[in-house]
Amino acid sequence: MPSAEPPDPHFAERVKDSFARQLFMTTLGATMTRVEPGLVELELPFRADLTQQHGFFHAGVTSSIADSAGGYAGYTLFPANSSVLTVEFKINLIAPANGAKLRALGQVIRSGRTLTICDLRVFAHAGDHQALCATGQQTLICLHGRSDH
Amino acid sequence: MPSAEPPDPHFAERVKDSFARQLFMTTLGATMTRVEPGLVELELPFRADLTQQHGFFHAGVTSSIADSAGGYAGYTLFPANSSVLTVEFKINLIAPANGAKLRALGQVIRSGRTLTICDLRVFAHAGDHQALCATGQQTLICLHGRSDH
Amino acid sequence: MPSAEPPDPHFAERVKDSFARQLFMTTLGATMTRVEPGLVELELPFRADLTQQHGFFHAGVTSSIADSAGGYAGYTLFPANSSVLTVEFKINLIAPANGAKLRALGQVIRSGRTLTICDLRVFAHAGDHQALCATGQQTLICLHGRSDH
Amino acid sequence: MPSAEPPDPHFAERVKDSFARQLFMTTLGATMTRVEPGLVELELPFRADLTQQHGFFHAGVTSSIADSAGGYAGYTLFPANSSVLTVEFKINLIAPANGAKLRALGQVIRSGRTLTICDLRVFAHAGDHQALCATGQQTLICLHGRSDH
Repeated sequence: MPSAEPPDPHFAERVKDSFARQLFMTTLGATMTRVEPGLVELELPFRADLTQQHGFFHAGVTSSIADSAGGYAGYTLFPANSSVLTVEFKINLIAPANGAKLRALGQVIRSGRTLTICDLRVFAHAGDHQALCATGQQTLICLHGRSDH
Repeated sequence: MPSAEPPDPHFAERVKDSFARQLFMTTLGATMTRVEPGLVELELPFRADLTQQHGFFHAGVTSSIADSAGGYAGYTLFPANSSVLTVEFKINLIAPANGAKLRALGQVIRSGRTLTICDLRVFAHAGDHQALCATGQQTLICLHGRSDH
Repeated sequence: MPSAEPPDPHFAERVKDSFARQLFMTTLGATMTRVEPGLVELELPFRADLTQQHGFFHAGVTSSIADSAGGYAGYTLFPANSSVLTVEFKINLIAPANGAKLRALGQVIRSGRTLTICDLRVFAHAGDHQALCATGQQTLICLHGRSDH
Repeated sequence: MPSAEPPDPHFAERVKDSFARQLFMTTLGATMTRVEPGLVELELPFRADLTQQHGFFHAGVTSSIADSAGGYAGYTLFPANSSVLTVEFKINLIAPANGAKLRALGQVIRSGRTLTICDLRVFAHAGDHQALCATGQQTLICLHGRSDH
């Protein structure tokens, strides 16, 4: 995991501001609960309108918050005047995403000038219990000189 | 691509019925526009509340309809009394998902007794123009004897 | 699939020359049987020293020729003074890689200035019969101005 | 990571015996340096005949030992009379695989009755220095009642 200082001291504001403009995250009801260099955590309370045919969180919902958590984890380490795009991700749905809330953790494995690789984990929380329900890996690209706005 | 007859002659009803119970697809506004043996197509009109920070469809939305299209493409070839789960998928976001609607195409590459592999494509439609905006690959598992209800 | 002319008219020589310097391909016994804009095919005869524990081609062998086929498919569309690296790939091993030879097909899905996405397929040939034994997807990066030598 | 006891007390012998029959691993020169419940490590010394066009380990070599490390990590937790196959894997090549040896680490993330998910890491060692050069994720299937021989 990268330990270097982020090049942009205002990374947290930049990340939160961009996240606030991801209207789909508002639609899902996701909130950003941690923003650290190379790490972002999102949480998402259960809602019936986010489910698949068996009443669990839809794999697309799990994937969506995993993708945003990873994207913003990478973005914490990007320079101020830049933008982030997901190149690709892969995700294994390893247990039913069943519970009162989902928690997605994105962590940078390697941050390069152009490409950044993140580890993605999603946990399903039910009462005091949490279970890893998805694990993934993501490639991001940094668009230098392209403002996020 | 598999050419064999689906084992369940009522596959289309079974697939549409299951899709109708994926409340998240209703939340997104996705509709099922084609159901054939080994192939399912979904369409999703643009809405501002489905976007990422640049105003395009969020990668999670693109991935969600790709996942459902592939899952139901596989499910067309499953036996009557069975259920489908996504084991994993990988998706490349190859162009901005920008346009009046998205169209996701799931196609079975190989349907086995336990595992099914699907090809996923998502196109962004703007006027008469369409562009491939995502391409992926998915592994599904068939739960035999477990009803989808 | 891209239909544009490759920017380098000498792409085939450049690709074959680079492939000849991949000593691991020689070690495996792979040969390049097709080189077209956006498409490369490799073939690999069976040898017992390329097998896994059940006597079939090892998944690593299947993956290796899939990776090289895709990498060189992308490289056909790169400019003359450039280099190609695999960013990542994902591969499903969908049937035993069992037969007298393997044939790997790499095809460009999208060729961008920086990133190129390829479709990977590997077929196992036994007599007149061929079976798709692996299917994958690959992301390549073009290193502009960095000679392959 | 799973902490449960492996169901087969002779897992280490079973894993080493199967690995010894993967003739491709012998061809590469890979040795198994750790076998623990849910974890396998392989090492591979540099040889010029394992390289790609720039003289580094070929991505196929890196992927091959990652695949075997993960496959056998999963196999440590399988019952005695069973066989393991790779369903699929995804790997990011995050730095040049350049050095005197590669070390691949496969670790089980989740071991289920049918499917097992592994984390894959490959390190390039040069003198006292090691660098993470690849990271991946793998899905395995357990074939119950099918001997590995």
